[in-house]
Amino acid sequence: MPIYDAPTRDMQFVLHDVLAVSEAGIPGYEELDRETTAAILGEAARLSENVLAPLNPVGDAQGCTLENGVVRTPEGFRDAYEQMRAGGWMSLDADPEYGGQGMPYLIGSAVGEMFVSANMAFNMYQGLTHGAYSAIHAHGSEEQKRTYLPNLVDGIWSGTMNLTEPHCGTDLGLIRTKAEPADDGSYRITGQKIWISAGEHDLSENIIHLVLAKVPGGGEGTKGISLFIVPKFLVNADGSLGERNAVTCGGLESKMGIHGNATCVMNYDGATGYLVGELHKGMRAMFTMMNEARIGVGLQGYAQGEVAYQNARAFAQDRLQGRDVTGPANPDGPADPIIVHPDVRRNLLQQKSFVEGARAFTFWGAQMIDRAERAGDAEADAMISLLTPVIKGFLTDKGFETTVLAQQTLGGSGFVKEWGLEQFVRDSRITMIYEGTNGIQSLDLVGRKLGQDGGKAIMAFFEMVKAFNKEHEGADEAFDRDFLEPLKQASKDLQSAGMFFMQQGMKNPQAALSGSYDFMHLFGHVCLGFMWAKMGLAAKAALAEGRGDPAFMEAKLATGRYYMARQLPATGMHLARIGSGAAPVMELDAAQF
Amino acid sequence: MPIYDAPTRDMQFVLHDVLAVSEAGIPGYEELDRETTAAILGEAARLSENVLAPLNPVGDAQGCTLENGVVRTPEGFRDAYEQMRAGGWMSLDADPEYGGQGMPYLIGSAVGEMFVSANMAFNMYQGLTHGAYSAIHAHGSEEQKRTYLPNLVDGIWSGTMNLTEPHCGTDLGLIRTKAEPADDGSYRITGQKIWISAGEHDLSENIIHLVLAKVPGGGEGTKGISLFIVPKFLVNADGSLGERNAVTCGGLESKMGIHGNATCVMNYDGATGYLVGELHKGMRAMFTMMNEARIGVGLQGYAQGEVAYQNARAFAQDRLQGRDVTGPANPDGPADPIIVHPDVRRNLLQQKSFVEGARAFTFWGAQMIDRAERAGDAEADAMISLLTPVIKGFLTDKGFETTVLAQQTLGGSGFVKEWGLEQFVRDSRITMIYEGTNGIQSLDLVGRKLGQDGGKAIMAFFEMVKAFNKEHEGADEAFDRDFLEPLKQASKDLQSAGMFFMQQGMKNPQAALSGSYDFMHLFGHVCLGFMWAKMGLAAKAALAEGRGDPAFMEAKLATGRYYMARQLPATGMHLARIGSGAAPVMELDAAQF
Repeated sequence: MPIYDAPTRDMQFVLHDVLAVSEAGIPGYEELDRETTAAILGEAARLSENVLAPLNPVGDAQGCTLENGVVRTPEGFRDAYEQMRAGGWMSLDADPEYGGQGMPYLIGSAVGEMFVSANMAFNMYQGLTHGAYSAIHAHGSEEQKRTYLPNLVDGIWSGTMNLTEPHCGTDLGLIRTKAEPADDGSYRITGQKIWISAGEHDLSENIIHLVLAKVPGGGEGTKGISLFIVPKFLVNADGSLGERNAVTCGGLESKMGIHGNATCVMNYDGATGYLVGELHKGMRAMFTMMNEARIGVGLQGYAQGEVAYQNARAFAQDRLQGRDVTGPANPDGPADPIIVHPDVRRNLLQQKSFVEGARAFTFWGAQMIDRAERAGDAEADAMISLLTPVIKGFLTDKGFETTVLAQQTLGGSGFVKEWGLEQFVRDSRITMIYEGTNGIQSLDLVGRKLGQDGGKAIMAFFEMVKAFNKEHEGADEAFDRDFLEPLKQASKDLQSAGMFFMQQGMKNPQAALSGSYDFMHLFGHVCLGFMWAKMGLAAKAALAEGRGDPAFMEAKLATGRYYMARQLPATGMHLARIGSGAAPVMELDAAQF
Repeated sequence: MPIYDAPTRDMQFVLHDVLAVSEAGIPGYEELDRETTAAILGEAARLSENVLAPLNPVGDAQGCTLENGVVRTPEGFRDAYEQMRAGGWMSLDADPEYGGQGMPYLIGSAVGEMFVSANMAFNMYQGLTHGAYSAIHAHGSEEQKRTYLPNLVDGIWSGTMNLTEPHCGTDLGLIRTKAEPADDGSYRITGQKIWISAGEHDLSENIIHLVLAKVPGGGEGTKGISLFIVPKFLVNADGSLGERNAVTCGGLESKMGIHGNATCVMNYDGATGYLVGELHKGMRAMFTMMNEARIGVGLQGYAQGEVAYQNARAFAQDRLQGRDVTGPANPDGPADPIIVHPDVRRNLLQQKSFVEGARAFTFWGAQMIDRAERAGDAEADAMISLLTPVIKGFLTDKGFETTVLAQQTLGGSGFVKEWGLEQFVRDSRITMIYEGTNGIQSLDLVGRKLGQDGGKAIMAFFEMVKAFNKEHEGADEAFDRDFLEPLKQASKDLQSAGMFFMQQGMKNPQAALSGSYDFMHLFGHVCLGFMWAKMGLAAKAALAEGRGDPAFMEAKLATGRYYMARQLPATGMHLARIGSGAAPVMELDAAQF
């Protein structure tokens, strides 16, 4: 049975030592002192460790079942769901106007990390609900908000996102699901949606589907798409549940992982739907859900890496095989714990340095969202918009890689189900695919975000890193050498890649498209390098001021040095690949593959 | 249902255009003309495509079952096994003295690649048998050879390797299984072995277990280990099956993949065993099986990559989403096949350039084995000994990565079971673990192989690459630029890494151990770069001489250019990591992780 020990100390370090949240000047942040966040994180930790984590292998082994249109979740899920509701976790960062607690998105992210580490498949039920809440909150009418939000916030109702159809995933312009206007102002929705996470289940009393469909007369492609609310049960004027709507689950997908979450084929047979936002402007509304979801998926990536790492670390500290090459570390035992071996350490440090860097990156991003939304900061909004595909694409690629590395630490034990590592690998794999494959993220980054507003956001990013370096260099030779110099080099590589795209851009758009994936990874490394430099500074300050556990702070510095020395050199490789341009990628005819 | 189309044309290209096997001057190779190998490969292709591949998802879904000590393999496995036997595939490269056909190891490898691509879990039954055959053939007595080899060669009996115990995998010195001498010269074997592939099943009449155990009075650690034959059924003097031996399957592992292969807990309760080779010299005999097995596992890695790539390619050529950025490629359809998109091509080319390079590398290695064994070439023997951990470690890491990339090509379809991609990911994952984890391979490479005979083999490798470059440079500017220059740079990086280890070696053994994994990958890239340069030359020659399909040869050159431009730059990153030395890896205390 795998372990999970919520990393609240690491979270507190990021929140207070690195981000100094209570002094961030963001409305709602002033209350986030160490004690308050410790209390919230501590409660979430207990639920995660004691309730959600033990259910994770159960959900994997049992999966969901469909019988006569009814989907049953694994044993224990309903009870856990009730505990989540009762604890108020579903309403944590929702609008108080609709029953939410109004906590910052940042706190929702920290708590979310624990829930995802403990049980990703389970947490998706509420994750999707949160997305539906956000879309209605941002684009719904007053009446829709009053009708749906309080119950979504409470969790007594849940939500879904319905985009994909059998013949179209990425290319939503091909959608065939139809929405015919009815006399009462509602619509009749007809079509089939696939891969609908939490599409049908037994955890909530009602399910509010958000569905993309085409109203006749709309434009071609994505222009003709509108967004609809399609409740499983229609809602009466008094808020009580009415008639069953004509939406049914036609099947469950058999898949590699996240077995505890029901992935449904959803059939809409003239189901009653209500337009959300403007007619034919459904894509815009959907992107509200999608951008939030993408950051949430990036978080899933590293959160699965975190729990996998914890299990790898425990194994490496416990398993006795071979001897330290410099002399026995455990002379009274038959062998030394394998954590003495350099290659086992290399593997563990690759995991640790990624997960901790990714956490800082995600929290920093969440803080930007709060700054944008709560303080109306347009620059923060542009920056998080730029970074969203990096958070999604880089953190899920590396998060999955981390689960694979952790599995490797266990050797053969990593391959058998009993130890749980292989489930983390199977579960985390989906994060690279859903909410837009990571290839699509890289296109979003290079094809859209990079050039937005004349490249303002990426310029601001470079300025920020430069200003950071300027501010801190020269104070500590070792820190300059170990942190700032590698960060400068990596940032220079990123700039060179950006320059290459710009130079090629006009005459050869395929040069940028051929390098987009490498650019996303290059960018991700620079971001994590930047985070490690920030964390290194914070740890140095804490050591100098005698705050916190010195061994913990020293470990932060050492882990940062590892990332800088061993992971950041990847930027040169990505730049070289990008610099080779489109030719190596475009030469072959389709038939020559 | 996934497809499999045996890549016989690619194999013929490596055998004849690149390796020129019929002129290689190796005994037994003179018969390997294009027609002969085409006939053999064609037959193996039919069996792989029509019998083995369709059984692959069946084996995954059904798995093996254990009831009252009897293990049943999935439906259809017995029939397929009989077809393999009847076709003579099990005896292909075995010694004619014992009923084998005496074909080169190289041909066994080419055929093996197809069997593994088609159905890895199934093919392991005969793979293990081959290993047992090799150990007895190399170390058994005349009587043991006569008693066991003919039936192992025929396949009517099968074999296993029994190393791991619950408390020891890598560190075999900790083995507790005991072998007590009996009066008749045999031994009584007592102990428990775990993770025994094909340990018990219903495909063969007898199972010949090769078991590591300690005879009292042997030395400490691995010195006290001996190797034993422990047949499931004892064999009477006339060769007929006698009494059931005291060896039983105590359980089947539930695991991530290779469900069609029975992974057994084996209990030895005073079972009768027969010493193979010298007393207390069991490790040496076991290494015969292990070295062969390691190359076979490397082959599994890229063979799974090959079949995954084929399915990704087919999907990308078929799936319509989005439009070519330079103008519609399929103007009459609703969208273009996704293979028009640069990032999809990048992904496919990463797969394709690896798999084809890995095939050339493995075939080249197999030819070295034949040269060593059939022509008594000591240099070839030393070279393949050096390269074995690279073949195992690099090709399985990258082979697994290839299955993940292929899965990514399919987007959501890659995650659902129906399309079969996720099975390739789950099955190939074990190749990075068994027969020595890839971490162990890197230690074998850096800690043992590199320095052997004063570094003679690695020096010979560098000389070989240098001589190749010297011989071919200056003839074709484009080839120099696209192939030879990158190869030179990569080879220089490898030399620099080797130098760094040597300089550090004396004062800091941990510097080499901290860089061993990166060194293995660096070496692997240089080998594949070398292979691509060889394949590029061969394709150029074929084009110049009007041999073969020009589109095929052009594709080889373009794929090679991709590898050189986009994959080989990884060597610089690995060198940078290695150059950071032991400090980043060794700084943390075990408790600080």
